[in-house]
Amino acid sequence: MLISQPIMPQSFPSKLMDATARPNVVEMTPQPSGALDVNALFAPIRPGLRQVEAKLCGVDSALFAPLADAFINLIGSGGKRLRPALALLAAELNGGMQGTPRYSAVIALGASVEMLHTATLVHDDVIDGSLLRRGAPTLNAHWSGVSTVLAGNYLFGTAARFSAETQNMRVIELFSDTLRTIVDGELRQLKDRYNFVQKKDNYYQRIYAKTASLFCAATQGAAVLAKLPEERIADLYQFGYNFGMAFQIVDDILDFIGDDTTLGKPAGSDLRQGTLTLPFFHYLHQHVDASSVIAILEAAQIEADNGDGAVWNEAVTGLVQDLRAGSAVEAAREEARIFLRRAVDNLAGLPDGLYRHSLQGLCEFVVRRTY
Amino acid sequence: MLISQPIMPQSFPSKLMDATARPNVVEMTPQPSGALDVNALFAPIRPGLRQVEAKLCGVDSALFAPLADAFINLIGSGGKRLRPALALLAAELNGGMQGTPRYSAVIALGASVEMLHTATLVHDDVIDGSLLRRGAPTLNAHWSGVSTVLAGNYLFGTAARFSAETQNMRVIELFSDTLRTIVDGELRQLKDRYNFVQKKDNYYQRIYAKTASLFCAATQGAAVLAKLPEERIADLYQFGYNFGMAFQIVDDILDFIGDDTTLGKPAGSDLRQGTLTLPFFHYLHQHVDASSVIAILEAAQIEADNGDGAVWNEAVTGLVQDLRAGSAVEAAREEARIFLRRAVDNLAGLPDGLYRHSLQGLCEFVVRRTY
Repeated sequence: MLISQPIMPQSFPSKLMDATARPNVVEMTPQPSGALDVNALFAPIRPGLRQVEAKLCGVDSALFAPLADAFINLIGSGGKRLRPALALLAAELNGGMQGTPRYSAVIALGASVEMLHTATLVHDDVIDGSLLRRGAPTLNAHWSGVSTVLAGNYLFGTAARFSAETQNMRVIELFSDTLRTIVDGELRQLKDRYNFVQKKDNYYQRIYAKTASLFCAATQGAAVLAKLPEERIADLYQFGYNFGMAFQIVDDILDFIGDDTTLGKPAGSDLRQGTLTLPFFHYLHQHVDASSVIAILEAAQIEADNGDGAVWNEAVTGLVQDLRAGSAVEAAREEARIFLRRAVDNLAGLPDGLYRHSLQGLCEFVVRRTY
Repeated sequence: MLISQPIMPQSFPSKLMDATARPNVVEMTPQPSGALDVNALFAPIRPGLRQVEAKLCGVDSALFAPLADAFINLIGSGGKRLRPALALLAAELNGGMQGTPRYSAVIALGASVEMLHTATLVHDDVIDGSLLRRGAPTLNAHWSGVSTVLAGNYLFGTAARFSAETQNMRVIELFSDTLRTIVDGELRQLKDRYNFVQKKDNYYQRIYAKTASLFCAATQGAAVLAKLPEERIADLYQFGYNFGMAFQIVDDILDFIGDDTTLGKPAGSDLRQGTLTLPFFHYLHQHVDASSVIAILEAAQIEADNGDGAVWNEAVTGLVQDLRAGSAVEAAREEARIFLRRAVDNLAGLPDGLYRHSLQGLCEFVVRRTY
């Protein structure tokens, strides 16, 4: 039964454990932020990205006006379109896709992964009740939770439609499997909230399912559409995996070290909502008395459960300050670099050139990004 | 752009308007309830239904235990499997599908439509907050709204996966379009709540999108998989449409005339939640002073909005009693019969035999059903 397939790539946890125990030599080192020009990296696929954009913004006519406006706001506020960009770059590694009739399938894949991403963001708004997302007011702030659920469902349907437009069975199956994997990750995250004695492995499983799986779908799907050999398809799956893991780790770091303006929410908001991320695991690991840290958090959480959140807020704020002052963030960043180093390695068997160069550049961008 | 396609079959509203203005001769007349043996009608496709059942119940292993149990409860409490049954019967009209390797695509279609139906039921639980569904406690009663949203998403993903397993591009596209149409119908329903001056056409649009579209997907999809000629595929689309419209009208009638035990909720619950259905439109149409009925409801609703729901509840309860005493229910039932008569007509160009006989029998079942 296809549904019972393992969520985790089997090679993953042990490898990472080795890597953290004795870090590899990592070439990429932190550099001044903002030095990397993402636009320049996207330049070779700019026409394709415009087509993806047009496809994404065409999703309004069937729905009545207020919702359509909300969609346009949300879809239009756009982020970096990183997932479609990865798909377009990966599809071009072997050359000859742009400008051919087959390229429309790559555009459909790019639109599909971005739409799926947007749909999960919409439902996340219901889930974490956060008030800002991409700097724009969320759908939830304008609409009731109910409409937000339905709006997300509509976007899921649209993403499914786009995936069908690839006209490629393997990509379509990839899409539906990825949707289920993402939900699995979100359920895991809910289940593990406020569990201060969970294993670090839970974290890796979670971020694979919640985030990296969609990057995998983008790059692996593109490789399938470009009719690359199976070995290269596997390489691009692994690239998406390593890239996505690093991306989420950096995201989790930024949640601790960012300020309210860049994040659009208070620092440490993941921990505040009970979600443990990599910097926290390193903080705990490095702490001289981890068990008393856990005891304090558990006690504070019980008080919060009983209606008094002040102790909890104080405990989290103190921990965030302490964590920022120590080396937990650097340890987490080191893990992101390891993943990205592996991502670069995954491209070794693919032709060198403009597109591979852009993918490599995006790896550097991820580790350096500050927003 | 495919997304901007019209939601309504263009032929529909005018035709129905004609029909209600001067009803056709309708052969089917109400008969004692329960006289029809659905199991006998399902007999020719029993082995297929068992395969659908096995496929539906195989959806647990990837998720952690508590959710899996909730799924099994919900999926297992099963309803009548009417949608898969229609697909299996339609696929067999021209003979020769059962027992062939191609039959697995029909099973996948049946599982897909039922899973999509279940996913929308799960999200409906969040939407209408109802506490009983199919007589079993809802997911929502056990889980928070958040988990329920995610559980629904997981089932959407599974339904998408099943649709991909048909390996038929047209069916896959049908699936994603249907998902979007259903959401559109639910959004329309939300938007039109407590709007007492809405047009009756809004009702037809709503129930097409919310209910009939999935029946269309079941029968049209089956016709596609059975490689019927285009004309017959169109017939089976129309059959699903007419059958589905009648099915929802009867559902809406039962909401007015059922008792608490059979419905699992108080009579008139649609109206109580502000959703206007066909019996209400007929009630209003037949009333000597419709505008004062509307005025009373509007005033009561404003009081309810201001926190005092007693007047609203009283108004609805009074209206339900008055409606049951009059002929609005019979007028609505007459419309259902017209749709079902048309559904039977849609089968005229298909080979007569066991499977067509079952589809015709199900039309009779719909108009006579009491639960």
